Amino acid sequence: MRLNEIGEFGLIKRFQKKIKNDSSVIKGSGDDCAVLKWDRLNYQLFTTDMIIEGIDFKKNTDLWLVGRKSLGISISDIAACAGIPQQAVVALGLPKNMQVNQIDRLAKGIFDLAKKFNINIVGGDISAANELIINVSMLGMVEKSKLCLRQGAKIGDLIMVTGEFGESIKGKHLKFTPRIKESRFLADHFKINAMIDVSDGLLQDLGHILKQSSVGAVIYESLIPLSAQADNPEDALCSGEEFELLFSASRDQANKIIKSSKYRFRVIGEIMPKSFGLRLVNFKNKYSKLLNQGYCAEARTGFSDKAGYGHF
Amino acid sequence: MRLNEIGEFGLIKRFQKKIKNDSSVIKGSGDDCAVLKWDRLNYQLFTTDMIIEGIDFKKNTDLWLVGRKSLGISISDIAACAGIPQQAVVALGLPKNMQVNQIDRLAKGIFDLAKKFNINIVGGDISAANELIINVSMLGMVEKSKLCLRQGAKIGDLIMVTGEFGESIKGKHLKFTPRIKESRFLADHFKINAMIDVSDGLLQDLGHILKQSSVGAVIYESLIPLSAQADNPEDALCSGEEFELLFSASRDQANKIIKSSKYRFRVIGEIMPKSFGLRLVNFKNKYSKLLNQGYCAEARTGFSDKAGYGHF
Repeated sequence: MRLNEIGEFGLIKRFQKKIKNDSSVIKGSGDDCAVLKWDRLNYQLFTTDMIIEGIDFKKNTDLWLVGRKSLGISISDIAACAGIPQQAVVALGLPKNMQVNQIDRLAKGIFDLAKKFNINIVGGDISAANELIINVSMLGMVEKSKLCLRQGAKIGDLIMVTGEFGESIKGKHLKFTPRIKESRFLADHFKINAMIDVSDGLLQDLGHILKQSSVGAVIYESLIPLSAQADNPEDALCSGEEFELLFSASRDQANKIIKSSKYRFRVIGEIMPKSFGLRLVNFKNKYSKLLNQGYCAEARTGFSDKAGYGHF
Repeated sequence: MRLNEIGEFGLIKRFQKKIKNDSSVIKGSGDDCAVLKWDRLNYQLFTTDMIIEGIDFKKNTDLWLVGRKSLGISISDIAACAGIPQQAVVALGLPKNMQVNQIDRLAKGIFDLAKKFNINIVGGDISAANELIINVSMLGMVEKSKLCLRQGAKIGDLIMVTGEFGESIKGKHLKFTPRIKESRFLADHFKINAMIDVSDGLLQDLGHILKQSSVGAVIYESLIPLSAQADNPEDALCSGEEFELLFSASRDQANKIIKSSKYRFRVIGEIMPKSFGLRLVNFKNKYSKLLNQGYCAEARTGFSDKAGYGHF
């Protein structure tokens, strides 16, 4: 059997089955970050992301954007857990004939974004490679009381998002700013029950929250903020690498979040019992069928279709 | 200017120049691990290593060995700092036509070695790739009093090693067991002034200790343990990916280390003033000229010559 026959989730499950962790691990595989014991009040967050030329970015992309993206993906994972990014290591696979000024451009993208978020680049590894590969591993911290995971969504919660959806392929996957400020604003002032960043696509990532929280949901197509850059409305549901936050909070908290005018958060639906499944109310105000994994089969995730197999 | 013109050290320096860290970082770029603040008594260690098919291992290598190597390199980095490995994340780039049973074999190599060293695999990332890529990032801990870095070697120290040298290319680069037990034994019972693991080659890695400790050294070719598998004596000095420990301790401590018979440690030379440089006493008992970087230019580092550009 070949890799492309078992698919993303089959592969990820294969790895997860092998994992047995000790008590230093609060939450291992299966969320945006691993959550590790730290001290009395705080947890440590740990995440890793690999991007590859021709898969996650085109060959002739400005390497400043590529460097920025490589760090930004991990920062977004930390944001999804409501944490503060702190340190990162960067492993590079570099083609031997690469120009030194291109490497400098790549490094500038990494270090510029690191500076913006006060992240220490504490080391790395450089290898020869056939194409450009960048792997970032990042540490962060989060107060125990503020940690957000995919699990924890409650029936009756409102489902909310930052930003607009559907323009990843138009360049957002290279130019996004990870939602650390928004995430910390939420965690500092409100009670968020579940959170994830949209890397696989809004529907797919909502599916992760529902599965890990053992709940269902209804979302309203008319409420989902579609980017003016998007090609068609379906992109709002299926476009990956948007790096926006998707979260749920009680109706009371959600109302307070909307009234706080510091950042723009929008309600897109509501958490329902598990038996309800995941249903979409479409533009004609009709309930769709149950939405399953196949719904977005032809949608793009970031630059290239089905390129990223995702976290495990 | 192309990458292969500025060379390994030129490239690494380029990155290091850009790095500015805050007080959470005890030791950033430039050692086997980054050293981070942890608690009153302990530091956290953080390291990353990428290996790539065709560069760090041949295409048809048993993937159990490849998985093992990918984790082993980072464990060896933690050993070089006298720490205990604790958690790791694993990012994989997998060719789309890869067989699932091959992926299982790779995972088994990773998880078998993780189990042996009580390391928690707390998550990862899976991407499509043109060739197999494995990136491991690892956390560990070390008591403040036991931390070993490349800096700290003192004039008069004896220079010591674990194991034998020169058989990396014969398979040791895939089959080594990281020297955690030996490293912890040393740190628990003795005062080690400087330590590194031999990934670039004995001479090159001794050079790292000398540079960061601002000292020189003399080593005795007749004292360097040459593996029976080695092709020629020069391999003992130049063979990379041996993953043995290279360290220095005072003459008094060194004598006690040798008398302790739990593990085999061998003296290969002595730390000298910086002005002495690095000199080899050859088999004819004559001082060689100063040894410089060029000495091992034709030696192999692990599987393929000059493939790994090394840590930064």
